[in-house]
Amino acid sequence: MTEPVILFDPYPRSRELIFREGQWERLQAMGRVVGHEGGRMPGDMVDTYLPETVAVIGQTDLPAGRLDRAPHLKAILNVEGNFLPTVDYDICFRRGIHVLAAAPAFARPVAECALAFALDLARRITFSDRAFRQGREQYGLEGNREGFSLSGSPVGLIGFGNLARALLPLLAPFRCHIRVFDPWLPDGFIREHHCEPVALDDLLRQSRVIFILAAVTAENEGFIGEREFSLIPKGSAVLLMSRAAVVDFPVFVRFVREGHFVAATDVFPEEPVPADDPLRDVEGLLLSAHRTAGVRDAFYRIGDMVIDDLGLILQGLPPLRMQAARRETAARYKSKPGRSYEKKGR
Amino acid sequence: MTEPVILFDPYPRSRELIFREGQWERLQAMGRVVGHEGGRMPGDMVDTYLPETVAVIGQTDLPAGRLDRAPHLKAILNVEGNFLPTVDYDICFRRGIHVLAAAPAFARPVAECALAFALDLARRITFSDRAFRQGREQYGLEGNREGFSLSGSPVGLIGFGNLARALLPLLAPFRCHIRVFDPWLPDGFIREHHCEPVALDDLLRQSRVIFILAAVTAENEGFIGEREFSLIPKGSAVLLMSRAAVVDFPVFVRFVREGHFVAATDVFPEEPVPADDPLRDVEGLLLSAHRTAGVRDAFYRIGDMVIDDLGLILQGLPPLRMQAARRETAARYKSKPGRSYEKKGR
Amino acid sequence: MTEPVILFDPYPRSRELIFREGQWERLQAMGRVVGHEGGRMPGDMVDTYLPETVAVIGQTDLPAGRLDRAPHLKAILNVEGNFLPTVDYDICFRRGIHVLAAAPAFARPVAECALAFALDLARRITFSDRAFRQGREQYGLEGNREGFSLSGSPVGLIGFGNLARALLPLLAPFRCHIRVFDPWLPDGFIREHHCEPVALDDLLRQSRVIFILAAVTAENEGFIGEREFSLIPKGSAVLLMSRAAVVDFPVFVRFVREGHFVAATDVFPEEPVPADDPLRDVEGLLLSAHRTAGVRDAFYRIGDMVIDDLGLILQGLPPLRMQAARRETAARYKSKPGRSYEKKGR
Amino acid sequence: MTEPVILFDPYPRSRELIFREGQWERLQAMGRVVGHEGGRMPGDMVDTYLPETVAVIGQTDLPAGRLDRAPHLKAILNVEGNFLPTVDYDICFRRGIHVLAAAPAFARPVAECALAFALDLARRITFSDRAFRQGREQYGLEGNREGFSLSGSPVGLIGFGNLARALLPLLAPFRCHIRVFDPWLPDGFIREHHCEPVALDDLLRQSRVIFILAAVTAENEGFIGEREFSLIPKGSAVLLMSRAAVVDFPVFVRFVREGHFVAATDVFPEEPVPADDPLRDVEGLLLSAHRTAGVRDAFYRIGDMVIDDLGLILQGLPPLRMQAARRETAARYKSKPGRSYEKKGR
Repeated sequence: MTEPVILFDPYPRSRELIFREGQWERLQAMGRVVGHEGGRMPGDMVDTYLPETVAVIGQTDLPAGRLDRAPHLKAILNVEGNFLPTVDYDICFRRGIHVLAAAPAFARPVAECALAFALDLARRITFSDRAFRQGREQYGLEGNREGFSLSGSPVGLIGFGNLARALLPLLAPFRCHIRVFDPWLPDGFIREHHCEPVALDDLLRQSRVIFILAAVTAENEGFIGEREFSLIPKGSAVLLMSRAAVVDFPVFVRFVREGHFVAATDVFPEEPVPADDPLRDVEGLLLSAHRTAGVRDAFYRIGDMVIDDLGLILQGLPPLRMQAARRETAARYKSKPGRSYEKKGR
Repeated sequence: MTEPVILFDPYPRSRELIFREGQWERLQAMGRVVGHEGGRMPGDMVDTYLPETVAVIGQTDLPAGRLDRAPHLKAILNVEGNFLPTVDYDICFRRGIHVLAAAPAFARPVAECALAFALDLARRITFSDRAFRQGREQYGLEGNREGFSLSGSPVGLIGFGNLARALLPLLAPFRCHIRVFDPWLPDGFIREHHCEPVALDDLLRQSRVIFILAAVTAENEGFIGEREFSLIPKGSAVLLMSRAAVVDFPVFVRFVREGHFVAATDVFPEEPVPADDPLRDVEGLLLSAHRTAGVRDAFYRIGDMVIDDLGLILQGLPPLRMQAARRETAARYKSKPGRSYEKKGR
Repeated sequence: MTEPVILFDPYPRSRELIFREGQWERLQAMGRVVGHEGGRMPGDMVDTYLPETVAVIGQTDLPAGRLDRAPHLKAILNVEGNFLPTVDYDICFRRGIHVLAAAPAFARPVAECALAFALDLARRITFSDRAFRQGREQYGLEGNREGFSLSGSPVGLIGFGNLARALLPLLAPFRCHIRVFDPWLPDGFIREHHCEPVALDDLLRQSRVIFILAAVTAENEGFIGEREFSLIPKGSAVLLMSRAAVVDFPVFVRFVREGHFVAATDVFPEEPVPADDPLRDVEGLLLSAHRTAGVRDAFYRIGDMVIDDLGLILQGLPPLRMQAARRETAARYKSKPGRSYEKKGR
Repeated sequence: MTEPVILFDPYPRSRELIFREGQWERLQAMGRVVGHEGGRMPGDMVDTYLPETVAVIGQTDLPAGRLDRAPHLKAILNVEGNFLPTVDYDICFRRGIHVLAAAPAFARPVAECALAFALDLARRITFSDRAFRQGREQYGLEGNREGFSLSGSPVGLIGFGNLARALLPLLAPFRCHIRVFDPWLPDGFIREHHCEPVALDDLLRQSRVIFILAAVTAENEGFIGEREFSLIPKGSAVLLMSRAAVVDFPVFVRFVREGHFVAATDVFPEEPVPADDPLRDVEGLLLSAHRTAGVRDAFYRIGDMVIDDLGLILQGLPPLRMQAARRETAARYKSKPGRSYEKKGR
């Protein structure tokens, strides 16, 4: 083999988006970088280079046929936050090709927003600003009739992946009792993080602030619906941070509209949300346009992780910073590829 | 002396507001409680009981003449957040009468809101919700053009009293470098809290998030004005949490209106704010109607502190939970008495 | 008055012991420093300067007669860790003279040792080193038959002053349930620190690691004796950090000798301990020669605190860093003056 | 296949050692458990059951020939702390058989001891107890001539695996600047943990407390020797926690004997240490007989992890709690099998 090739096919990301100063040079020092931007790399270009390729950075289609043409391939480093169905995972696992996603880059900014939303709903911050602009603000105790302190309030986390674990240290100073529901995790693991593992219904009944953080899988679509929402105590706050599809979205909005609980959502069944969607006027709903993950630094962090992990792999060491696809779960995730505001997995 | 009297004169607070279940009974077990609610206790009623009074709970006028009539008085426990000019402090200090205020009850809820405001401004949460309702939301990275992460951003605290110290643990997980300006405190004290003591101008020039937490004194009215605001880097976030009078308020609002920085304020030169105040329409300003302190639990905490500290004093022990007036500073505070939404001191 | 005088009478401390570079110059910039070292300042020298003195740094005798000769006196800054009976406290309180002690300088180093002792006893570190030197070490699990993890073990704190509060953050990562007994403190204050207030007997019965941190007062001498020690579960660890006089010391040593619990002590009824004291051979006792407080930096911290607090007082502000004598408790402490290894108060 | 078999071959561990109440029953509910204790499972017994075996718990020899006979095998769960050379890792990786080790069960107790040793050496605790027993104790400041506070001292970590990461939260309240040397890790990963990545020589030159936590690999035997030890500042403290083979052990002991630094070691080139080894008398050396890992609870934690991870694997989910062998590093570790006091890997 001549100089090993690194295929750089980051669309819908770009080199400029993910690499801070100096990182592109670091990448080039690792091999011959063959790149394409502004769209998916053309198929024949991919095919030409695969025989010498050691790593693919991006969301290139890599079915069995192509993997067979890439005998030196060691790693596929996705620069989005999810594992996509465009790779033949079985072959990768058998051959020991690392398949990595950039989800951890987004955990911290999303966690920061999750805490912000929780405080906003608990203390009625956005609602009070709106009331003030409409001339109907209330002062002091009067202005707190409906709010509550996050400090000491019982919290529930639905899903306990990257995002939940990035949220825990931010919640720590508020000394909340934290209940967790995650059917993929043993109780002991949850307890090691000083949280209480519970059944979903118990979590819903006992929490004042509920964070929905679960990724969508084939099995959990819409698993929080009418029955589940009705278990939540009146006056609670519900935050939908991961994917709209894990809840029955119209029912979720109805509960907010009827004042059962207040809520925040960063995700919607259809994005962009239609201009005339009545959701835009629901009083108790804090609206966020799929923007909790996408801060500038998160994209640079993707680049940092790619450089670090690729560097390790090419030195014969295991990657550390990105999320590794695992045999058991890779096939279960149901995220759709390619929207520029796509978001963190579980 | 017959049974010692505890004068209970909490207006504009009330028994129901500050005492949770069981506390009133605890108070009664400490002495003969003589109370008046719904207004200030009538002067002759005060005068009648002073000779047997050991403690006053409330904001009763206690000039020299009255203190002279109260030879057994051991404590004056203010149930508001400030020291008021209605007590002859010199006499109290000389006689060892404890003068206590309830400010610490409010430090935690205000700190919680201060963090919420900082996250809100950094991540543009309320502004984005408003844009969404107006049909002009932007998704993903586009929706983050102007925001930034609080994590790792340089923070400045102006004033380092109760409130700042309640805020520090909430900020800790964000790993910000924290600069502090407080002319009343030695550098060593600030460094013990792992913050950097700096001059005001350096703080203003180097912080991305600035919390104004200083109490108003005779000397610091309007000490942050045109010159100071112009030192703040463009795109920063400024939070006014303590008193409107510490800034040149019209200039503050102008800087926000002109887009120099975004800001949040919980306090206003005139409250309630006039219905037609143009401030209500300033885009980059998060409006809060003097409501960060007044959560339900904070009032119960006042009652808890009163019971605990009065209990200690009557046992011959020093009080611990309320803020004690100090000879040097009692006269300097300039807060006005008696508004029901009055707020925490420094 | 001519230039205000600062009397510097630090014996048994010295200028070199407590001041780091630059601090002596800072002190001199505050007034005319009149000092004496190597012994107590001669009485006539004190008397000569008192009329112009604004502050006394040290343990100078200051009975009523002398205080009367010092009309400008604003502060007495003790450079030891305790309040001594050599000052007429009543007059000081009446006149508003600050009486300050350096106890907080020692809280951190003592807390560090308290944690070290707890880990040492729990994990049998010193005992195992001794066994190793005697050729009777045991490897692996065998060597852990008697030890236990501090992590998660129930902890009891007897006394909840400066020292206990400096210890809490060091214990935090071990996630122990912490019970506190302190008869001078209301339960609410203890709960604010996330500990459980309990009666002494409950603490003794339920703790695996017991820290004795209480100062000696007229009322509590020997309050932990035969009956109390017998409540402690077998195999626990007991740490005596404050004063030997709070326990029945011979009984304490007997319990250790008989193997009821292991223990560490930094204090002894007689110091230096007699050469032939049989205590030197007790197997389960970790011996420390009143040395947990006296690290080099703690003495510099005394100097820092003195400079900071004196600076504040001379500017007309209240002191912040040293411990202030309080009317109610000043007279109760029973520490003896003048030993160079004297130690922190409560 | 008939009922799936779980081979239980834990020697030198035992069922009683690793399973708390109820866990054995949980294991039996997962399949047909075929066990052997008191020695390695006989070869023919292993061979008989392999065709139906889904999981092996223990250190059974599993070369290629045996793996070929076990078509349903999904997991090998080692109940020691290291990956042993008795398994054909390549085949396992290819087939997706999880190979897991119990190292994480030991990280916490070893970290607890590492902190204890650091405090012991910094504050001279064991040395002072020894001096006290020999009648040469020194009181107060005199007794601290050689010690120092851990708080604020510069710390160096050599190796940044499980153990280092379990140590970080315990060190956090001491506010030390922490430098890390780990040639297997990118700088960004170390910085994410708020430590400074440095070259080995810089770490040695700049640290007052040095923790040696690196696992032994083919490449790093004796990598800390004469040259490296001489870079360490006089009066520092060195802790050898991982494996004796990473240092030039005789040189290490000589530096301690000559008073260059004080040290603690939990590991020795030969264990048990010979009765007449002169090391037993080295004054500045804290001796620990390979006992930091082996607390009772750590063994129960092995059982908990085995049950949790096997449960996940049999449900078709990835394991979470044990350490997974990785293609790149499995072959590099050089630990020897089978000593009952064997210890945590990196």
